[in-house]
Amino acid sequence: MTEQHQGIEMTLFSTEEMSAVFANEAHVRSMLRFEAALARAEARAGIIPHEAAKRIEASCKEEFFDIAALYREARKAGTLAIPLVKVLTRRVEGEAGKYVHWGATSQDVIDTAMMLQMREGIDLLVAGLLEIGAVCAKWSEQYRHTLMVGRTLLQHALPMTFGLKAARWLALVTRLSSELRERRAQKIALQLGGAAGTLASLGEKGLVVGAYLAEELQLPAADMPWHTERDRVVEIATSVGVVAGAMAKIANDLVLLSQSEVGEVAEGRAVGKGGSSAMPQKRNPVDTTRAMASARLAIGMVPVLLSGMVQEHERGVGGWQAEWAAIPELFCTTAGSIEGVREALVDLEIDPARMRENLDLTNGLSMAESLTLALGVKLGRGEAYRLVQEVCQRVVASGKTLRQEVLEDHDIQEHLSSDEIDLALDPKNYLGSTDALIDRALAGYQKILQ
Amino acid sequence: MTEQHQGIEMTLFSTEEMSAVFANEAHVRSMLRFEAALARAEARAGIIPHEAAKRIEASCKEEFFDIAALYREARKAGTLAIPLVKVLTRRVEGEAGKYVHWGATSQDVIDTAMMLQMREGIDLLVAGLLEIGAVCAKWSEQYRHTLMVGRTLLQHALPMTFGLKAARWLALVTRLSSELRERRAQKIALQLGGAAGTLASLGEKGLVVGAYLAEELQLPAADMPWHTERDRVVEIATSVGVVAGAMAKIANDLVLLSQSEVGEVAEGRAVGKGGSSAMPQKRNPVDTTRAMASARLAIGMVPVLLSGMVQEHERGVGGWQAEWAAIPELFCTTAGSIEGVREALVDLEIDPARMRENLDLTNGLSMAESLTLALGVKLGRGEAYRLVQEVCQRVVASGKTLRQEVLEDHDIQEHLSSDEIDLALDPKNYLGSTDALIDRALAGYQKILQ
Amino acid sequence: MTEQHQGIEMTLFSTEEMSAVFANEAHVRSMLRFEAALARAEARAGIIPHEAAKRIEASCKEEFFDIAALYREARKAGTLAIPLVKVLTRRVEGEAGKYVHWGATSQDVIDTAMMLQMREGIDLLVAGLLEIGAVCAKWSEQYRHTLMVGRTLLQHALPMTFGLKAARWLALVTRLSSELRERRAQKIALQLGGAAGTLASLGEKGLVVGAYLAEELQLPAADMPWHTERDRVVEIATSVGVVAGAMAKIANDLVLLSQSEVGEVAEGRAVGKGGSSAMPQKRNPVDTTRAMASARLAIGMVPVLLSGMVQEHERGVGGWQAEWAAIPELFCTTAGSIEGVREALVDLEIDPARMRENLDLTNGLSMAESLTLALGVKLGRGEAYRLVQEVCQRVVASGKTLRQEVLEDHDIQEHLSSDEIDLALDPKNYLGSTDALIDRALAGYQKILQ
Amino acid sequence: MTEQHQGIEMTLFSTEEMSAVFANEAHVRSMLRFEAALARAEARAGIIPHEAAKRIEASCKEEFFDIAALYREARKAGTLAIPLVKVLTRRVEGEAGKYVHWGATSQDVIDTAMMLQMREGIDLLVAGLLEIGAVCAKWSEQYRHTLMVGRTLLQHALPMTFGLKAARWLALVTRLSSELRERRAQKIALQLGGAAGTLASLGEKGLVVGAYLAEELQLPAADMPWHTERDRVVEIATSVGVVAGAMAKIANDLVLLSQSEVGEVAEGRAVGKGGSSAMPQKRNPVDTTRAMASARLAIGMVPVLLSGMVQEHERGVGGWQAEWAAIPELFCTTAGSIEGVREALVDLEIDPARMRENLDLTNGLSMAESLTLALGVKLGRGEAYRLVQEVCQRVVASGKTLRQEVLEDHDIQEHLSSDEIDLALDPKNYLGSTDALIDRALAGYQKILQ
Repeated sequence: MTEQHQGIEMTLFSTEEMSAVFANEAHVRSMLRFEAALARAEARAGIIPHEAAKRIEASCKEEFFDIAALYREARKAGTLAIPLVKVLTRRVEGEAGKYVHWGATSQDVIDTAMMLQMREGIDLLVAGLLEIGAVCAKWSEQYRHTLMVGRTLLQHALPMTFGLKAARWLALVTRLSSELRERRAQKIALQLGGAAGTLASLGEKGLVVGAYLAEELQLPAADMPWHTERDRVVEIATSVGVVAGAMAKIANDLVLLSQSEVGEVAEGRAVGKGGSSAMPQKRNPVDTTRAMASARLAIGMVPVLLSGMVQEHERGVGGWQAEWAAIPELFCTTAGSIEGVREALVDLEIDPARMRENLDLTNGLSMAESLTLALGVKLGRGEAYRLVQEVCQRVVASGKTLRQEVLEDHDIQEHLSSDEIDLALDPKNYLGSTDALIDRALAGYQKILQ
Repeated sequence: MTEQHQGIEMTLFSTEEMSAVFANEAHVRSMLRFEAALARAEARAGIIPHEAAKRIEASCKEEFFDIAALYREARKAGTLAIPLVKVLTRRVEGEAGKYVHWGATSQDVIDTAMMLQMREGIDLLVAGLLEIGAVCAKWSEQYRHTLMVGRTLLQHALPMTFGLKAARWLALVTRLSSELRERRAQKIALQLGGAAGTLASLGEKGLVVGAYLAEELQLPAADMPWHTERDRVVEIATSVGVVAGAMAKIANDLVLLSQSEVGEVAEGRAVGKGGSSAMPQKRNPVDTTRAMASARLAIGMVPVLLSGMVQEHERGVGGWQAEWAAIPELFCTTAGSIEGVREALVDLEIDPARMRENLDLTNGLSMAESLTLALGVKLGRGEAYRLVQEVCQRVVASGKTLRQEVLEDHDIQEHLSSDEIDLALDPKNYLGSTDALIDRALAGYQKILQ
Repeated sequence: MTEQHQGIEMTLFSTEEMSAVFANEAHVRSMLRFEAALARAEARAGIIPHEAAKRIEASCKEEFFDIAALYREARKAGTLAIPLVKVLTRRVEGEAGKYVHWGATSQDVIDTAMMLQMREGIDLLVAGLLEIGAVCAKWSEQYRHTLMVGRTLLQHALPMTFGLKAARWLALVTRLSSELRERRAQKIALQLGGAAGTLASLGEKGLVVGAYLAEELQLPAADMPWHTERDRVVEIATSVGVVAGAMAKIANDLVLLSQSEVGEVAEGRAVGKGGSSAMPQKRNPVDTTRAMASARLAIGMVPVLLSGMVQEHERGVGGWQAEWAAIPELFCTTAGSIEGVREALVDLEIDPARMRENLDLTNGLSMAESLTLALGVKLGRGEAYRLVQEVCQRVVASGKTLRQEVLEDHDIQEHLSSDEIDLALDPKNYLGSTDALIDRALAGYQKILQ
Repeated sequence: MTEQHQGIEMTLFSTEEMSAVFANEAHVRSMLRFEAALARAEARAGIIPHEAAKRIEASCKEEFFDIAALYREARKAGTLAIPLVKVLTRRVEGEAGKYVHWGATSQDVIDTAMMLQMREGIDLLVAGLLEIGAVCAKWSEQYRHTLMVGRTLLQHALPMTFGLKAARWLALVTRLSSELRERRAQKIALQLGGAAGTLASLGEKGLVVGAYLAEELQLPAADMPWHTERDRVVEIATSVGVVAGAMAKIANDLVLLSQSEVGEVAEGRAVGKGGSSAMPQKRNPVDTTRAMASARLAIGMVPVLLSGMVQEHERGVGGWQAEWAAIPELFCTTAGSIEGVREALVDLEIDPARMRENLDLTNGLSMAESLTLALGVKLGRGEAYRLVQEVCQRVVASGKTLRQEVLEDHDIQEHLSSDEIDLALDPKNYLGSTDALIDRALAGYQKILQ
């Protein structure tokens, strides 16, 4: 295939860095890393001569291989391992060549290479999430007291602050980062089993070689070969998919806040960004839109991997091979979704005045509950509730504010002074545990940074 | 992005031809085709000067554009149309430049370009299916009488012929080809609506321009702009997904027939194909495996497109943009699945002797029903059934063949002569409508070839 | 299973009618319809005695069967057909009993029963869509000239009318109804093939019996048995999935229009609907939310069916059986999505004043393109564009309206009279083909009603 | 809805126990548990009178509620919490009634109830997995040395033992059980935030109430309210989906081993199970087929939940509500897949003789690698390899066994004695680390049992 066939997802819906981690070249490089380490491990275990290991290692260099040709051969051979081992063996020459890939099966090298790439991929994802966290942490403090309305089912509900909104996103990316790190620690593992998972050609020394190889690659050894038990891979993948879903949530919130009628945030201006020559008022949400599209693509890979778990006996027919494309695509598009959110956040224009304006849009009715509580202390909950409900109905009917209607209500004024009313109707007095929750989110984020 | 980031799905799970149809370059070319045709249509409608149209058309050539730079800009701008129109306008220069993209919105050009590409893509898919059909048609005749066992739940059931199996695949690809052609005729359509779907900047002439533009591109005009009603796109996509599912069915049947224990077919031998240096007996199913993996990836795109149908008001945020990657990937991997099946079939080694051997594996018990029918004519159905069931139980217990046990059963021999028994136990006499069904499949295929 | 285990999707995310069509009882009833018709067809073909057919038919009544017991047995037997045929045979008694299910396989009766149910299901879906169409058609007329803003990427773009919005929905449900009807006409078909798809036990008469049976059930005969070629089923299913996706689009538009900050529509008030005791201002979008949730569930079934197409040889292991639940769930939840949209629409409160107010929110900037066109006639496009862009920048900076800024711009006033300016800035003069498009949508709907 | 509308997935593709955990009744019961505990917690925190808490608790009994009526109301109200709180409030009466659901929002009670049910659900899933583990553990020992062929891409590869196959399944269910337990420990959590996630109506005491409520329900408190950050829920769900995928893998292996041509295992016989009256030889794989169908349905729910993560601001529109059906269905069908595998395993008939027979099917070629190793010691790897490859080609050509051809090869006999040849060709000498791996799997399982 020539450069001409470059697909769009790598161009628009990924990042340079992640695309590099999962490029065909990177896969070959990881496979060569496996072959070199295997030779070293087997030399340590006394299975192959040290000299042979050295000669193999010396040939395990990407620049010796014609990547495009390898992939062309892989199409015929069924796996990339077959042409790669063939070319490597030829290059090593002589008796040492015979020890190339000794005791391993194609799937050992491919699965291990993919694990090495996924480990790098996870690190990139976590780094991106933590950058988002840094912005959210800053805002949690900065907008801690900036009032905005909380919206349920896209209807105004109660007051909250933009700092709390940022803190919720912060807690989210903190949890996602922890989760990815746990996956990295627990699920990334070496694959080594030989053709039937018995390590037969390594005789008695199979597990020793496995242990040495794990050391060489700084990968945990698995309890067992896992050629057709894909729980590790898919558990990593689903956690990555959850990250994509979470990015889409944040991006969608930003898009909703950017609506012309809401206008509480807007993506930063930049030359060539989100504009329209015909419509100068236009500020399209570009980064967030890209984040949402990327996340959709990422999520699409998860059921491919899940249903691909049905792998036959000791080597799958189709389910395994689909992973070769599905995992790179999942990581790349998830990276794209993180990057889209990150780019949107770093330049985001935030409009606290508009937030306050929107909060007041329902004429103060979002403070009805607060008023009921204040009255309840004096009157009992039942009576308070009845009175406030009546006032609220008048607000809806008259179009006046809740404050105006309360000040015209003699029953209420009998029990609450004008100051008490103002206190009860001020949104900043009705924020409950907002502050404490922001502190928790900040503390949680600080903790994973260490 | 550089060439280095080439992804695996384009390399292993697509075809050269389909990847070319959906490459970034091809998308730009299709967009330029739209812009040139739009200018011509508007000149015909008297909206822009003919001279301007000519100058625009002269600039709508892929070679004038730096594709990679356009995609880089698209990342910032939100769509590829914005930088493309900007560069095109600059190139046209002067007053004529102002008429570039006149009255159209970004989505008009992108959707129409994608429709042009999908039309080409469908043609490639149909061509591939018909090639599979050609092989199956040949086999339907050639193996019309070649006995094999029919398997239900992977258990032996009744005799059939390999010709019938091929005829079922033939009827399947015939139906799929018809379906794709209908989709092409009914769902491929022009997109033209302007920013809000009103064609406002074309004044009274919006529908006329639409009609002329449809003519210029030889695309059907749509009843309405369909920017956020994606039924057309998704109905095409799901039919493509069904093709992928069907390819996986055929590929899976081939893999099952290739099992070491079954051995009725094997993928053709070729240098470097499906072998294993350590295990000379090995004939791995390579093309079919690739077909199955490709189909899994294709199917993964369908829910992305379906759930992406929720597009907001007059332009979607995320759902639409995800299509830009999901549609190319769907077409490419479906092409990969067709190609895998086609390659497997053209060189397939078929072993009629092994088919017959496997048919006899259950000692003739698959002929029990046939025997009951023959006896029933003489004895009544009820009594016949009772007798045959007893004999069958003896077969299972003794390990002898049904024929042996029948010849030792005096009750049966009282009613059936030795010749009648042989007739009743011969699988080739128990094929029902096999012949007629093969004829139907052949006739159906001939019909769509015309 | 007892009543206690009723699941939520049948309760909240379906309709009574559709749940009845796909209830276990309805499936048994459809299977009995097949068995009775099969007996009649075989009697007509001279394969079984007419008397036996009559006795079989007399026993094919739902009330003779303990549905719960049948399903319990099905769990063990592998299909519902086995216990059903066993009980039916026992009930018919004597020699006639032996002719029950003659020549058919379990999958023949189950697939045909499902086809009968899907046919009914499609009719219900179409009826629901046409009811939505009726409301949209009424609104297309009624709000033909009601101005509102068109929104792209949730940003204000250009003026349009609410009548056009309704017309787009109308055209959508019209297309979906046509599509479902075509699917009904082309894909619904009889299944009859016997255990291996050869119709062996019907001897020479397999195709005749098939033709008679098709007549009896008023179902088209298929070209071939299609036990493991599921294209028909999945093509129906994907079109149903597209309906669900489309309903989610309409529902989502309604939810977005209902936002507190937008307020252009609201779901109708009803006792117990969408309220909140604590928050009297609250009007939650209930029906649309249910529509969106239902659609999500429906879409989830499509990949289950697509990936289930990989069915082994002559009878699938898992893929087929999953259809038994996936198809009912797909139809039920899609019906739920239609019903949610329908209920939302019939009582929808529409606020044209708010629509107009929102249109003016960007100070008339959505009319910039219109102004450019008017000026262009006098000045040439290039100069007009330059002037308007400057004015627009002043609007954004000053917060004044476009009209105010234009009236303060001497360059523009040199070329356009005050009346011409008013004309150019009035959104109702910038609606392009809106009227014609509405007419098209209405005509299309009228046509499918006939 | 009446009992008539019972759907099939509850009947065939779930278990009694899991269906009970996720039945509508169980959901109401869990919600009542929340309301009672909330009242107690608020009394402890001094927010509501102890007497009120007692009266509320006394009314939180399932038998006081008309479940069907509640769900009917929920359809209109938008959530089940609204009618439930209304009925509960009415039942409690008087001033105490005003304290029902105090400070909580609908989503608090629904999410927490679902968490309680998921916790129970996880326990059932783990119990089922451990039962499968028990069978596999027994077999790992019992068939530790029972030779069978390892199959890659469904082709014979190398010898292994059935004990190792069982050990791989054992290690799989062990890992899945651990994973589910970790999910239970880390992701199951209380939801409490009030309408906007601020806990405003609890004043300063929001977090204290949260802590008490967590204690009362023995649920971990969450770091933050998580109304629209669904990572917890979806991470649980994806792990359950992975269980379903793993069950399908085991079930599929069993189906493949049960094929007529393979015959190494068969599902146990039982009256009414998997038979066919017409075909007495038939032993259909019933439990495994059900397991595979159930798993397909389960996997279908995962993308519904993932794409449903995009939940708007402080309460989702559609994504959240879809969970109400998707989570129960996911747990129920996953339970169905576990149960299917469990039932298949407990009665499985295992045929060691047939395993051995199949191992010998390729005339001993699976021992070629072993022979090369033995020869290599004497001759050097290169020369050994060349000699063995030649012999293997003769085996393929002649149809003789590898042993026969080796005994006719003078070159080989020069270097290996007849005893050495027999040693090298005996599969039981070529099992590598099989024994050690079995021990590991057994140890891992023992560990999680403690």
